[in-house]
Amino acid sequence: MADRAALEELVRLQGEHVRGLKQQKASAEQIEEEVTKLLKLKAQLGHDEGKQKFVLKTPKETLTGKYGEDSKLIYDLKDQGGELLSLRYDLTVPFARYLAMNKLTNIKRYHIAKVYRRDNPAMTRGRYREFYQCDFDIAGQFDPMIPDAECLKIMCEILSSLQIGNFLVKVNDRRILDGMFAVCGVPDSKFRTICSSVDKLDKVSWEEVKNEMVGEKGLAPEVADRIGDYVQQHGGVSLVEQLLQDPKLSQNKQALEGLGDLKLLFEYLTLFGVDDKISFDLSLARGLDYYTGVIYEAVLLQMPTQAGEEPLGVGSVAAGGRYDGLVGMFDPKGRKVPCVGLSIGVERIFSIVEQRLEALEEKVRTTETQVLVASAQKKLLEERLKLVSELWDAGIKAELLYKKNPKLLNQLQYCEEAGIPLVAIIGEQELKDGVIKLRSVTSREEVDVRREDLVEEIRRRTNQPLPIC
Amino acid sequence: MADRAALEELVRLQGEHVRGLKQQKASAEQIEEEVTKLLKLKAQLGHDEGKQKFVLKTPKETLTGKYGEDSKLIYDLKDQGGELLSLRYDLTVPFARYLAMNKLTNIKRYHIAKVYRRDNPAMTRGRYREFYQCDFDIAGQFDPMIPDAECLKIMCEILSSLQIGNFLVKVNDRRILDGMFAVCGVPDSKFRTICSSVDKLDKVSWEEVKNEMVGEKGLAPEVADRIGDYVQQHGGVSLVEQLLQDPKLSQNKQALEGLGDLKLLFEYLTLFGVDDKISFDLSLARGLDYYTGVIYEAVLLQMPTQAGEEPLGVGSVAAGGRYDGLVGMFDPKGRKVPCVGLSIGVERIFSIVEQRLEALEEKVRTTETQVLVASAQKKLLEERLKLVSELWDAGIKAELLYKKNPKLLNQLQYCEEAGIPLVAIIGEQELKDGVIKLRSVTSREEVDVRREDLVEEIRRRTNQPLPIC
Repeated sequence: MADRAALEELVRLQGEHVRGLKQQKASAEQIEEEVTKLLKLKAQLGHDEGKQKFVLKTPKETLTGKYGEDSKLIYDLKDQGGELLSLRYDLTVPFARYLAMNKLTNIKRYHIAKVYRRDNPAMTRGRYREFYQCDFDIAGQFDPMIPDAECLKIMCEILSSLQIGNFLVKVNDRRILDGMFAVCGVPDSKFRTICSSVDKLDKVSWEEVKNEMVGEKGLAPEVADRIGDYVQQHGGVSLVEQLLQDPKLSQNKQALEGLGDLKLLFEYLTLFGVDDKISFDLSLARGLDYYTGVIYEAVLLQMPTQAGEEPLGVGSVAAGGRYDGLVGMFDPKGRKVPCVGLSIGVERIFSIVEQRLEALEEKVRTTETQVLVASAQKKLLEERLKLVSELWDAGIKAELLYKKNPKLLNQLQYCEEAGIPLVAIIGEQELKDGVIKLRSVTSREEVDVRREDLVEEIRRRTNQPLPIC
Repeated sequence: MADRAALEELVRLQGEHVRGLKQQKASAEQIEEEVTKLLKLKAQLGHDEGKQKFVLKTPKETLTGKYGEDSKLIYDLKDQGGELLSLRYDLTVPFARYLAMNKLTNIKRYHIAKVYRRDNPAMTRGRYREFYQCDFDIAGQFDPMIPDAECLKIMCEILSSLQIGNFLVKVNDRRILDGMFAVCGVPDSKFRTICSSVDKLDKVSWEEVKNEMVGEKGLAPEVADRIGDYVQQHGGVSLVEQLLQDPKLSQNKQALEGLGDLKLLFEYLTLFGVDDKISFDLSLARGLDYYTGVIYEAVLLQMPTQAGEEPLGVGSVAAGGRYDGLVGMFDPKGRKVPCVGLSIGVERIFSIVEQRLEALEEKVRTTETQVLVASAQKKLLEERLKLVSELWDAGIKAELLYKKNPKLLNQLQYCEEAGIPLVAIIGEQELKDGVIKLRSVTSREEVDVRREDLVEEIRRRTNQPLPIC
């Protein structure tokens, strides 16, 4: 029973390897070779029990040193061999490890999967310990800011199409933050921890953040004040241009690089038509250690609330940035693969969508059924089965009650409960006439449709965007 | 650190509870109430360490007694408290547990997720220890065989649309098997184990199966021979009718019920237009314990192979059946919820699809990109960004190279490698004329399209079913 977790991980890695190879369109031989190699390692596993020196394992050290102060949220498990193992904290670190292990230098992909945080769950705000993230990343050596702009365009596209209200994407750059800390007089060793303090500005006041910097983290008060002057600013491309002229910041190489790139980013985002959604915000810091360049975070501007209720307060719904050093941390030779990407918090968005629909008193449909096939008299099960099959074959989302002789009233009630908009009613007279009675559930209007026109008529009537969920 | 797993499971269950409640359209108060209840349980967790009497846990006993001889494949883990925990073996048992815990009596749902088996992996045949299943189930008290027929219709629909070649769905019924065992003289206590032997008939000869029954399982040879006479038969509805007249079987109540239901099932499947895909096969037994009625399994008839290669041998690609007793096993009062469903082996199907495309020398596209936005001259990045954004906003799947000044040749080569069918080329002359040059990658034909007509023209040219994967 020992090393079961290692074995599982190994099997998982075999899967990853095979998938990685597939993406490179490897031949069957290559896959065989890889499998042989892995089987050899598996055999080793039997002998090496207790030694724990498997490079293929993903123990806790894979995750540590990447998330900064958020590392306390990593879900760790002890396996039987005594080695520290962890559940994945996000999809970014596993993605970087995957690129390094498969020597991929160039990929664009999305990934929807579960991640785990030892945080305090808050069900009503969509905060869980096990939850889904949806990640999109672009890896590869490209010209500045083109993939970064695409990530922000995608973020805006997704959030716009989800109908969760107005949102704003705060943008900043780690190099601007670091340059700012340098010119303000923060010691190098305190950059990351001061960064974490700055990151709290969206939740608490500047006074509280300053207290943390000075009291807990031992920063000189005048240094903190200098930081305060910067991080309380936000704006558009004009703020970028203003800071490019800032007498102190413009002397710092890192800050200049960051500001130059942000200027370019704003240009591209204007071409993409999303510049009105973007705010350059010097207080945006993002807690994670692995970011190296541009960072961003989407926040909702108007929380949809019911009268008298507190705003949902789900916080940020999507975030990301550039992490050019992470892949290199997993490569034995330290080869770098520049990456930029974004994560979307699926449950948080769901909780907002659901709350919004509730506030609008819209019924949340749990199915997308377009039409219920019903019968007006008894003994028409066979005819209902034939019709529902015809509709399915034509790509119509159709249902029928699983009863031999359901009452028409029960069939209509089912539609009302399930939010099904149309009923296709078969009766003896309709069968003789070669028609189907098509009934709108809300208006209760009924019209005879020739059977051969039914599919087209249902398509025409239900060709509306389906409600989310 | 103790009881970490219990805590995780608790959090997961909180999620399930909340989701379960949502489906019942519960109010925020109900959710709050549920959360309070669960938080109380969580508080208990702190005090009850070492006692392990949490009803909310899913230890190994949840999984044992449901899978018959396949139980040896359950992936078990020991948690820190010493309790036996397991990774889920399929999606059916968790679904049944979910229905019982949330007192749902009526649901239709699909679920795509990972399951785990301690089996010997065979990468090339799509057999892994961690793999995806896609399940569809209908739960509720309904008239006979209507949901069962829908499950088989869906199975046929999915397998037909996946272009994995001809397939056949073998159908049988546990009651026919049990009735057959009874009339052949198998002792009651040996039904399940003899069932497992019969299930091997798709892989080994009748002689081998008989040897197992007689040698290993102690069945009298003449009893085995009587079973052999039955289980080597297969056919259509006429075989059902023949067996309804069988002097021995027709005396057995269970067998009669099963045969009667199968006759009805064939009627419904004829109305659904899939009866030609169905074979009544008395050797189909399905190893799992939880089936109570109709069972089925889809097998591919022609394996797509390259000349000289062995057939892939992926075995069954989808299977399922009726399990009316499983939910009751998890309900404290034993309340039954009849269920019928199917599971599709995702990786197995992928390996066939990929092998098939390889055999056809079709390139497996890893993206669905319809068009690459390219430029003929330098300094046109801004124009490319504007155009790609226009196309994205119109729902066209478009890409561009992330270079400021890519060579046209490189852009065209990228399309050939990635299988992108169209290139929208911007040049200085085209910009002046208000047109875009649209190039077909395979035919190399180029035509000038007015910019306002471009979206429509791309849609028209790429309106073909996309290749799978």
